[in-house]
Amino acid sequence: MRAIILSIGDELTLGQTVDTNSAWISRQLAAVGCNAVRHLTVGDAQSDIESAIRDAVPLCDFLICSGGIGPTEDDLTRQALAAVMGMELELDAAWMARLEEFFRKLNRPMSPLNSIQAMVPRGATLIENTVGTAAGITATIQASADRATSLHGVPLECRIFCMPGVPKEMKVMFTRDVLPHVQAAGGGAVILSRTLHTFGMGESNVADLLKAHGDLMQRDRNPSVGTTVSEGVVSLRLNARFPSADQAARELNATEASCRAALGDLIYGQDHQTLPAVVAGLLFEDPLARKWAPAVATAESCTGGLLAKYLTDIPGSSRYFRQGYITYQNEAKTNLIGVPAELLAEHGAVSEPVAEAMAKGAQCQSGAAFALAITGIAGPGGGTLTKPVGTVCIALASPQRVQVRTFVFSGDREMIRDRSAKMALTLLRFQLLGKPVPF
Amino acid sequence: MRAIILSIGDELTLGQTVDTNSAWISRQLAAVGCNAVRHLTVGDAQSDIESAIRDAVPLCDFLICSGGIGPTEDDLTRQALAAVMGMELELDAAWMARLEEFFRKLNRPMSPLNSIQAMVPRGATLIENTVGTAAGITATIQASADRATSLHGVPLECRIFCMPGVPKEMKVMFTRDVLPHVQAAGGGAVILSRTLHTFGMGESNVADLLKAHGDLMQRDRNPSVGTTVSEGVVSLRLNARFPSADQAARELNATEASCRAALGDLIYGQDHQTLPAVVAGLLFEDPLARKWAPAVATAESCTGGLLAKYLTDIPGSSRYFRQGYITYQNEAKTNLIGVPAELLAEHGAVSEPVAEAMAKGAQCQSGAAFALAITGIAGPGGGTLTKPVGTVCIALASPQRVQVRTFVFSGDREMIRDRSAKMALTLLRFQLLGKPVPF
Repeated sequence: MRAIILSIGDELTLGQTVDTNSAWISRQLAAVGCNAVRHLTVGDAQSDIESAIRDAVPLCDFLICSGGIGPTEDDLTRQALAAVMGMELELDAAWMARLEEFFRKLNRPMSPLNSIQAMVPRGATLIENTVGTAAGITATIQASADRATSLHGVPLECRIFCMPGVPKEMKVMFTRDVLPHVQAAGGGAVILSRTLHTFGMGESNVADLLKAHGDLMQRDRNPSVGTTVSEGVVSLRLNARFPSADQAARELNATEASCRAALGDLIYGQDHQTLPAVVAGLLFEDPLARKWAPAVATAESCTGGLLAKYLTDIPGSSRYFRQGYITYQNEAKTNLIGVPAELLAEHGAVSEPVAEAMAKGAQCQSGAAFALAITGIAGPGGGTLTKPVGTVCIALASPQRVQVRTFVFSGDREMIRDRSAKMALTLLRFQLLGKPVPF
Repeated sequence: MRAIILSIGDELTLGQTVDTNSAWISRQLAAVGCNAVRHLTVGDAQSDIESAIRDAVPLCDFLICSGGIGPTEDDLTRQALAAVMGMELELDAAWMARLEEFFRKLNRPMSPLNSIQAMVPRGATLIENTVGTAAGITATIQASADRATSLHGVPLECRIFCMPGVPKEMKVMFTRDVLPHVQAAGGGAVILSRTLHTFGMGESNVADLLKAHGDLMQRDRNPSVGTTVSEGVVSLRLNARFPSADQAARELNATEASCRAALGDLIYGQDHQTLPAVVAGLLFEDPLARKWAPAVATAESCTGGLLAKYLTDIPGSSRYFRQGYITYQNEAKTNLIGVPAELLAEHGAVSEPVAEAMAKGAQCQSGAAFALAITGIAGPGGGTLTKPVGTVCIALASPQRVQVRTFVFSGDREMIRDRSAKMALTLLRFQLLGKPVPF
């Protein structure tokens, strides 16, 4: 089953509003095994809506529209649908009575404009709106035989649903009066999805590991495995399309296991889990933790507080986070956490010995079990031939030892600072797992 | 001029990611007088991308694509474009060298997969990517004469641009290498836009002030004035549509002056200016500043480093920012910046006396001219009847005095922390302006 999602409104094509309806509808459709093959957005002009409907009908079994059925002059979806169907608009007396009743209850006069909301193309049916005045409309349209045949070899019929654009009203109507029709037509096929998150390796390196392990990213594999990158996090999207929910769940679990076998602990979490939340979880679970989780302190130079911000993103983070130092200038490194001035003079602020001294100093001053230190060149200025912009030294002081690593991150100042803080969390994560960092 | 925006990616058609690129691109296009007549989204299948390009080309002057040019097997935009053009993919030796250099600098092996990113259809041109490895591609496609003629009566030519889907990389590339072409093609009518940013008052209060001042937000006014809210910042969008650039600039300036008359210093900046950048500018300009700007120190509890992160967002921030304290637990407030334990016991950590003591302590310990302190309840837990979640005390110690204010911010943990840090910057901003806070 194929669906196209059509969103209507000048505010969308002008970019004044971000369309969140299409993503939401797509997720609901996927869950009942229906593919959204296209999202399409047009403005409020009737001719644009008409041509969008005409273009979409031969390509899909369901055309799910939202927007353009309000009472004002720029709401033209019902007129466009009538034109495509070649039908007149007719008054639906029952909905007109509902509208009059609605305004009587609110004790507000009903604007003459509102009566358009009781009009439907002949041959179409109203869909009740329990939240507002804009009833939906549904109709079945035959795709002209020649175009349809050329696509699938069979004449096509497309069921169209028009809903309000207001997300709240659309969601209620879609769930109650649209999704059941799609589900019934599908005869049970199900798509289940899962997302696995990694940090620390590039997208292509992650893809290489998945390729080496049974060619997991092969394009026509089911469940399919794809990668996306967002803010330095490389995520694997797993989609399983099967006739039954049971089979989809079983296959999805098997593919997840294969991905985990290929990437191991590089995968830090799944779906809505964030890196700070996963690290917090490890701290809370630590065998040493009784009332308090083992404490983490921070000493930050180039990240200027971002690492501590991440550590305190988590409600309840005071159980492991007591204090942090932002030692942006050399004097602060010396005065607050005792980094020897000679060390700074000899190696420079961005160096492994200084990072190590920062971590040890923060650990010692705070009494925390773990201390993370970051010193680097976030740019855009300050880079040299041997220490280019993006060079960042990160140290982790643990009860037993101090590790220090140098990374060169690419991107702008914001990206370099973000990746640095995430890498520090990653070093702590592997320490808490008791495993070596795999890159 | 007509544009179509094509977004490519299974994560979009599956609804796992909300497409924000299309809205952003539409706004940029509108600003140079180019209409986005359609947004179109398809998944990663090459056939779907091909048919989307084929459908769009006869309908527009510019086809702006994003997504599907990464290094992995599910990135198929370049292959689809080559198929539509009827051309082979060829290696671009210069970009291949850039890729090799990129990985050498990062000290990471270049995956064989990455070399696909140096391939372009014959007749197309690479667009440089200064932020990542995915170069863009641009080409001009003739719409087949029959379809084009049936639409506009003239044979059409469509310029296509393919960019990365990652918003950050896309935005840089679009601004530098796409928008200028669209603008140049536009010729006549001009839309000039300006955005003015405020922080501290709600959107409806800002709207009331604009309404009271000559009804600046009236719907059919030209230049038009509209408001948007993003991350607590209430922005005014001014759009001037006039036949000539001169007239548009003149009218835009006049409307800006009216907005400034209505809102005064509530407006902190315009267009790309951020609140931290504006505060940094004031510090750099301070009459006391010679080599060093007056120093600012921070003492943060609930914001956990976010305020210091904002202060150090700015390149060169070491001229005013030396050090900061993250005193998340009560003991840290006492040990690091000398907040008396009795004060904490008597008033609680979230109280004006404690905020004041934190600011004074940070000022004294650091020797900075100014110190900002934040203590509050970011939630979701920890609220009480008298101090609900969102209660935040903010203090500013200046050479002459200490001010302290209590705010109650709405929203989730992330929002409350963000608004708290921005409010602290706002207090400092009015202090540096030598003016009272207007709310």
